[in-house]
Amino acid sequence: MSRKDAIALDRKDPFAKKRKEFSIPKGMIYLDGNSLGVLPKAAGPRVKHAVEVEWGRDLITSWNKNGWWNLPRKVGDKIAKVIGAVPGSVIVADTISVNLFKVLSAAVQKRHERKIILSDSGNFPSDLYVAQGLTQFMADGHYLKVVEPEDVLGAITEEVGVVMVTEVDYRSARRHDMKAITDKAHAKGALVVWDLAHSAGAVAGRLMEVDADFAIGCTYKYLNGGPGAPAFVFVHPRLQNEVMPALVGWWGHARPFAFSEAYAPAPGVTRFQCGTQPMLNLVALDAAMDVYKGVNMERLHGKGKKLCALFAKLAEERCGKFGISVHGEQNWDGRGSHVCLAHDEAYAVMQALISRKVVGDFRAPNLMRFGFTPLYVSYADVYDAVEHLHEVLSKKLWNKSKFKAKAAVT
Amino acid sequence: MSRKDAIALDRKDPFAKKRKEFSIPKGMIYLDGNSLGVLPKAAGPRVKHAVEVEWGRDLITSWNKNGWWNLPRKVGDKIAKVIGAVPGSVIVADTISVNLFKVLSAAVQKRHERKIILSDSGNFPSDLYVAQGLTQFMADGHYLKVVEPEDVLGAITEEVGVVMVTEVDYRSARRHDMKAITDKAHAKGALVVWDLAHSAGAVAGRLMEVDADFAIGCTYKYLNGGPGAPAFVFVHPRLQNEVMPALVGWWGHARPFAFSEAYAPAPGVTRFQCGTQPMLNLVALDAAMDVYKGVNMERLHGKGKKLCALFAKLAEERCGKFGISVHGEQNWDGRGSHVCLAHDEAYAVMQALISRKVVGDFRAPNLMRFGFTPLYVSYADVYDAVEHLHEVLSKKLWNKSKFKAKAAVT
Repeated sequence: MSRKDAIALDRKDPFAKKRKEFSIPKGMIYLDGNSLGVLPKAAGPRVKHAVEVEWGRDLITSWNKNGWWNLPRKVGDKIAKVIGAVPGSVIVADTISVNLFKVLSAAVQKRHERKIILSDSGNFPSDLYVAQGLTQFMADGHYLKVVEPEDVLGAITEEVGVVMVTEVDYRSARRHDMKAITDKAHAKGALVVWDLAHSAGAVAGRLMEVDADFAIGCTYKYLNGGPGAPAFVFVHPRLQNEVMPALVGWWGHARPFAFSEAYAPAPGVTRFQCGTQPMLNLVALDAAMDVYKGVNMERLHGKGKKLCALFAKLAEERCGKFGISVHGEQNWDGRGSHVCLAHDEAYAVMQALISRKVVGDFRAPNLMRFGFTPLYVSYADVYDAVEHLHEVLSKKLWNKSKFKAKAAVT
Repeated sequence: MSRKDAIALDRKDPFAKKRKEFSIPKGMIYLDGNSLGVLPKAAGPRVKHAVEVEWGRDLITSWNKNGWWNLPRKVGDKIAKVIGAVPGSVIVADTISVNLFKVLSAAVQKRHERKIILSDSGNFPSDLYVAQGLTQFMADGHYLKVVEPEDVLGAITEEVGVVMVTEVDYRSARRHDMKAITDKAHAKGALVVWDLAHSAGAVAGRLMEVDADFAIGCTYKYLNGGPGAPAFVFVHPRLQNEVMPALVGWWGHARPFAFSEAYAPAPGVTRFQCGTQPMLNLVALDAAMDVYKGVNMERLHGKGKKLCALFAKLAEERCGKFGISVHGEQNWDGRGSHVCLAHDEAYAVMQALISRKVVGDFRAPNLMRFGFTPLYVSYADVYDAVEHLHEVLSKKLWNKSKFKAKAAVT
């Protein structure tokens, strides 16, 4: 594999033209789209319009005139296409943790006699915190049971009310079998909440196909919605009118402008809305979702898998002798779109890479994490990133006092 | 009172210069700042920077480099000054309904043996919905008791665990006596949650002075943070480490980047943070709060009261004969900064006013609501608004089929 070969792959890549829709900083190889996606070119003007015209000039009339009121559902429908859902089953609102709380409380209430919320140690910690906060508050015997990722399927018993799992592990990129877990849960009478944080926009979504009950996800990673873009909630149509979150508000009311004293849930997924949404972030996400127009998610996921496999292969071949090893899932078909490399000096090596504009992130204690957003990462990026890594390691460029600082915040 | 007199009042107004810090649409008399504040001139460039430089160029490094991670606390401290709180007692996050859920769940848990959440019929309906959703989920005998606003004080008994009240009524502008209610609640062993949605930024805040337990508020009204700007939470320092919301997440963890499986609350008000915040909206709010630099809130509130009193007086004098009457609180000292006028054709009259660029809003069944943000509304605006109202009514300009449409969304 030479750089020429990588460029040849880019020439044949049907998604290569998508890269032009993003504003990638000059000279940067950005491999952290699994944390914060890069700026879509359409987002800047859209936000500017929202500030100057919608807020600045049209003010409150924008709720109707500029579609603010319906935006959570409109953008939800755009996301639905990417995650394998149907129109009317997804809304955009709040943060992923808040949305998890909503769907988890709804699911627990629906299976109230069962006391176990089942999750695994590969879940993102905040999901575990949400379940802990909820069950501690309930104080009625409900509890979170955490098993190893490979033990989830076996741990689904008739005592489990809710299975709460993240499809793609934020470190290992191990991907749960959504169909197998959902089927087993349903066979045992449990409901399933899928966290798609590290899937949505990179992995071909199959929510309806696997008959998922609930899903949540964030939109600032592979979906490129911008820093802190509001998250999404999916509720299967068969459940929407059968469940009720503990957290409700006027945006989820059947008649919000009647200002009645009694809560009456709106039909459908709308009842999972609560309060006023951050419109500047929401319009940026709206613009970002348009990049997905005409994108076949299976093919896009296919490119992501190839990028990951190539990166892992080159990294081991070129840098294995310097102590690099691929961490986590190595089945390149059944995994997410990021790769972690383990190294004893992972923090310092990552800092050295970042100083050369090869941007990934560090996860304690010894992981360098690289995300491969198939919409804008090229095969040449992958090749060049490994070359930088090789140079940093072979010349010990990381062994500098300036990279010995304490771990960064993100 | 002539227009000349109004202009003379503006000349003597120490806040007149603040108006120049806002981008008010040309020719518009904007009296809806109690719903969505106008664009502060500093917000546009600040958002542009956040999009192009912070997101577009610095990407994930912005969490440290551009201060994203600490922004909820930094902006919280700016808001603290305006609402009479101390540094470290306020964070900015999520929506007002989500924040109400957090503090209400924390307060109910703290007074778990008491079953009543007390509120009043003048509260914003969404607050009542939040309490209904929470208690319905708890299903253990806790319930929301709603009394008339004037009966709140008398209804605070030793069975009440939490008093949940909004300081300023969103229709009548009637203002609760924060000190009397808080004192009575504490005397009876109850906790108080104050909703400052229609107070913050217009009414001089006194949270520490009255020894309030919790407060929440929104930032897109008088604080001019922009559409859907994240809301705030205040927790009194004496309570911060003694209470725990049902809704928690990694932004409220003591060591968020340890990624440990067990939740451990951060000390202080930080535990009321949950997940990643919408940075484009949050930076706009950050810029908006700088308008308050050097503002004496008592004096600002004093101007608001004068604007309200003048408007009500002129409206009754000039338009009483056309069926206009002032609705709600008429004690011009003890009230919020908006005025509702009742009229049988309120919807059509408001539409006619809006078509003349005099912007207020309609509240069913017969109210026209006008907000007087003392930072940018002038005495001349008040005078002119009443003149427009007089013309619309005296010439029956509202009596047009085009204004007979169904009630608008907002």
